[in-house]
Amino acid sequence: MKNTWFYEHLHPTLRAGYKFNKIIYSGRSSFQNIKFIETHAYGRALILDDIVQTTEVDEFIYHEMMSHIPMLSHPGPKNVLIIGGGDGGVLREVLKHPVKKATMVEIDSSVVKLCKKYLPSISRGAFNDKRANLVFADGDRFIRNSGEKYDVIIVDSSDPIGPAKILFQKPFYRNILKVLSSNGIMVRQTGSTFLQKEEINYSYKRYKEAFKYPALYLAPVPTYVGGFFSFIYGSNIINPKKITLPGLTKKYRVLKLNTKYYNPELHFASFVLPNHEKKIIGEKS
Amino acid sequence: MKNTWFYEHLHPTLRAGYKFNKIIYSGRSSFQNIKFIETHAYGRALILDDIVQTTEVDEFIYHEMMSHIPMLSHPGPKNVLIIGGGDGGVLREVLKHPVKKATMVEIDSSVVKLCKKYLPSISRGAFNDKRANLVFADGDRFIRNSGEKYDVIIVDSSDPIGPAKILFQKPFYRNILKVLSSNGIMVRQTGSTFLQKEEINYSYKRYKEAFKYPALYLAPVPTYVGGFFSFIYGSNIINPKKITLPGLTKKYRVLKLNTKYYNPELHFASFVLPNHEKKIIGEKS
Repeated sequence: MKNTWFYEHLHPTLRAGYKFNKIIYSGRSSFQNIKFIETHAYGRALILDDIVQTTEVDEFIYHEMMSHIPMLSHPGPKNVLIIGGGDGGVLREVLKHPVKKATMVEIDSSVVKLCKKYLPSISRGAFNDKRANLVFADGDRFIRNSGEKYDVIIVDSSDPIGPAKILFQKPFYRNILKVLSSNGIMVRQTGSTFLQKEEINYSYKRYKEAFKYPALYLAPVPTYVGGFFSFIYGSNIINPKKITLPGLTKKYRVLKLNTKYYNPELHFASFVLPNHEKKIIGEKS
Repeated sequence: MKNTWFYEHLHPTLRAGYKFNKIIYSGRSSFQNIKFIETHAYGRALILDDIVQTTEVDEFIYHEMMSHIPMLSHPGPKNVLIIGGGDGGVLREVLKHPVKKATMVEIDSSVVKLCKKYLPSISRGAFNDKRANLVFADGDRFIRNSGEKYDVIIVDSSDPIGPAKILFQKPFYRNILKVLSSNGIMVRQTGSTFLQKEEINYSYKRYKEAFKYPALYLAPVPTYVGGFFSFIYGSNIINPKKITLPGLTKKYRVLKLNTKYYNPELHFASFVLPNHEKKIIGEKS
């Protein structure tokens, strides 16, 4: 089993190969195949249905950008909802903020259980925080029955091909709007700008229907191949391009977020799109 | 030969696999192995010594960022030197500007000859432009005997492991400074921010010794794996962070550069570094 290669097959005409020296765990939950391997280049990796979800070495980019962009764009988020995010990385970053409650709704309890055991460096104890409210449920069903209002909603799902499919469709956005505060912010991941253009275009259309201020933002994540990786921000009150740098910088310093990727200047830079990416969402360049 | 896979082995513990349906050309020059293949995901690719150099689909990112960042930072570059760049992509972008002469010094005439034949969509006739001055020579030796002064020097070399090794070492910078105008700008590529940290750190040190204003800038190129790809800008007069957006936007509009990646807002955003990348070059975050 020493020095073998794992090849990701997410895109039919591309393969990303990772040399690994150990399979830590391999099994199947009610929802998906779950695997942890020890790679040479990126440390320990969580693999769901043969797709790399996160790795020890590059997870910080995705988790910081999913969390701090909405959390710092909002004037003072108190009640936060995370849909998915079983590894606990987004929960960890959200809890760096002075929230009252962070509810995380993960469909697959095995992912949480196994990540706590085999990837503890990602959640770093976040699940034990008193403000963390962990629910094992279908995300869409949960929000239909929640009755609460959330200031920030982060949809940290896998790609729209497995159990997460429903979280990308129209009715889900209607349900989201019912539980999002009037000045609330919703973000989600929308894949690689080179290899998942249709997905970005589709999700951006849903955002435009749902929000006054939809905005694509970008960060390259090495294990999500294909150039810039994309996220979409949506709010009906808070225009992400009207937030000011001095305000953001002050908040960032006060909170001492101790980030490895995110900083306030980068917050703004991540919303600046290359011409070909403007084209994907139908913006003029 | 149909539907085979090419695997790049640049990084010993990672592989990037490209499904291809045709080997267009495969041979050896006096300097390196040269191959052209037709990939499914990124179109035709130029491969030197088994490392992907450029592809039809994503070449625009690298070529635009190598060219327009220095060309638009300078008030009016007239004499430009490109070292390497055998595919003609940088030459093509440089010639969109009103330069008097663009000299391109490529060590391997076979690369130019074959790229003109098998990847014409990259040079797009640039080699036939009257302002193009194509020289087949060793780049370092050329500048030692040049006697001219250049406003912009772009070092578009392969990685520091093949024939390009000398172009990364200390004496090369001393020679560059002798042929660079007093307000000149030099840029080069310095690899992936996740996988070639030592190279970035090494090159940044050389820049700091040579220039008053060294600055790292970033753009993710899908076929250069490992997160953000990096470039370094250097000048003794022109501080890239003091250039103003209105000026840049006006120039960009007047020139009608017709870019697919570059735009003036992105020009600035590309100099904004994530915290871990500031760390690579010894900057505080």
